[in-house]
Amino acid sequence: MEQERIILIGAGNVAHHLAAALLKAGENLCQIYSRTLESARLLGMKTGIAYTAEMSEIYPDGDIYIFCVSDDSLASLLKTIRIKEEALLLHTSGSLPMDILKPYSKNYGVLYPVQTFSKKRDLDFDEIPLCIEGSSPNVLGKIKMLAEKLSGKIYAINSMQRKELHLAAVFACNFPNYLYSVAGKLLEEHGLSFAMLRPLIFETAHKVMLLTPEEAQTGPARRGDEGIMNMHKSMLKNNKDLLKIYTLLSDGIKEAQVKEGTDDSKASPAESVDMPTLW
Amino acid sequence: MEQERIILIGAGNVAHHLAAALLKAGENLCQIYSRTLESARLLGMKTGIAYTAEMSEIYPDGDIYIFCVSDDSLASLLKTIRIKEEALLLHTSGSLPMDILKPYSKNYGVLYPVQTFSKKRDLDFDEIPLCIEGSSPNVLGKIKMLAEKLSGKIYAINSMQRKELHLAAVFACNFPNYLYSVAGKLLEEHGLSFAMLRPLIFETAHKVMLLTPEEAQTGPARRGDEGIMNMHKSMLKNNKDLLKIYTLLSDGIKEAQVKEGTDDSKASPAESVDMPTLW
Repeated sequence: MEQERIILIGAGNVAHHLAAALLKAGENLCQIYSRTLESARLLGMKTGIAYTAEMSEIYPDGDIYIFCVSDDSLASLLKTIRIKEEALLLHTSGSLPMDILKPYSKNYGVLYPVQTFSKKRDLDFDEIPLCIEGSSPNVLGKIKMLAEKLSGKIYAINSMQRKELHLAAVFACNFPNYLYSVAGKLLEEHGLSFAMLRPLIFETAHKVMLLTPEEAQTGPARRGDEGIMNMHKSMLKNNKDLLKIYTLLSDGIKEAQVKEGTDDSKASPAESVDMPTLW
Repeated sequence: MEQERIILIGAGNVAHHLAAALLKAGENLCQIYSRTLESARLLGMKTGIAYTAEMSEIYPDGDIYIFCVSDDSLASLLKTIRIKEEALLLHTSGSLPMDILKPYSKNYGVLYPVQTFSKKRDLDFDEIPLCIEGSSPNVLGKIKMLAEKLSGKIYAINSMQRKELHLAAVFACNFPNYLYSVAGKLLEEHGLSFAMLRPLIFETAHKVMLLTPEEAQTGPARRGDEGIMNMHKSMLKNNKDLLKIYTLLSDGIKEAQVKEGTDDSKASPAESVDMPTLW
């Protein structure tokens, strides 16, 4: 049986890591397209795969087209791309519904990696949760087979769940990273280095690999230490935005305490829901 | 030379980890005090060290008293405790000034571990940054010798810097952990599991072990993707507090972009400050 020809549309952070994972899995990645020649060439040279920045040069005989582009770009790309009728179209977006692909093929679906990608960081793709969805049980089965070659963590979820998951990912990743940067700036103003916080950041994330975030919560708001919180607020009085963030997040921690009590032995709600759709 | 007799005041999360580190370093930990007999006994039994819940039973002939208690408790404990004149008093608070100890001994200082401690988690104490301060150069030297037996990362900083560091630590640890818990609750409402986010949380923290948070930032606010952000906001419209948090943090990420530009090759401000006080 001939291997299916995969075309990768996009050469950004996600495409970089996905291309490497496809090649590692022995998949037949044939071509990489990017809007800019510079990006296309960079990934093409890195992987040794044919690349182009011309829509008209995208191979029309691919079996699977994987779109790793911004949500905004996807619609215009879909309108222009020439593909054979039975080609499988996959997007990798956390937020776009699967059906955005419906007008362009009868075989379509989603392959959404729940991870933060930077070109500078190597990642073990096998550990990345891949959320998949397919236009039919047959298509879903095909996507599952591909996904299983890339990762050990496959979840079948629908478009609505994926949208919620993406929102949750912003809270779990993008916002904590921004708070790291706020912390770094507060230190910098007083001649201290961000490096002093690295072991703390590392441990904060490691704790919730086993504990629930509710069990892992520490700090003045968790202890209800109003004296410290008032002092911190007065230290932030010249930065209204940070003061608002401090107050909102501290209030959130305090309210969670009131709602859940402080009984650490209690099962956490975040752990009590089984994943019915996990294979 | 006889080893100095160390008395640990407190049996909470910090005391648990510090007691283990002192014993591992071969220090002469003689006694543990806690306000409640249950806590004192728990740590006493775990370490095999004498314990008490009676202030009057605290050994008055200790050479070093290390206070691992809440900021509120410290003042009242200091007023009651009987110690010999030359005893060294150390507190472990991020927020209290060193001089709170001044009325009680001529030898005093601070040993502040920049870490989040939970009894359930084992930690490599050697990796924990210890911030020290001493009432005199001589006392600082003595604290440094003790600290170096416990950790490979010793910083000499003053009370004002420590206060700022503690505030930054709230932004780098307590608030990200709260956002993990918000993310878990959002998932739970849609039949999804917190476990799906664990690799993302892990990677988000690991990225900033080498990169700066500014380099590591991803997500809709970083990309300026207003469409996604508006969708997220409408998904949060029934939860005003989360909507405020989403808006404030997204605005912060966008503003940081504007201020710093998007030139990833630029040295990060958080890294550009050397630690003049690091040994």
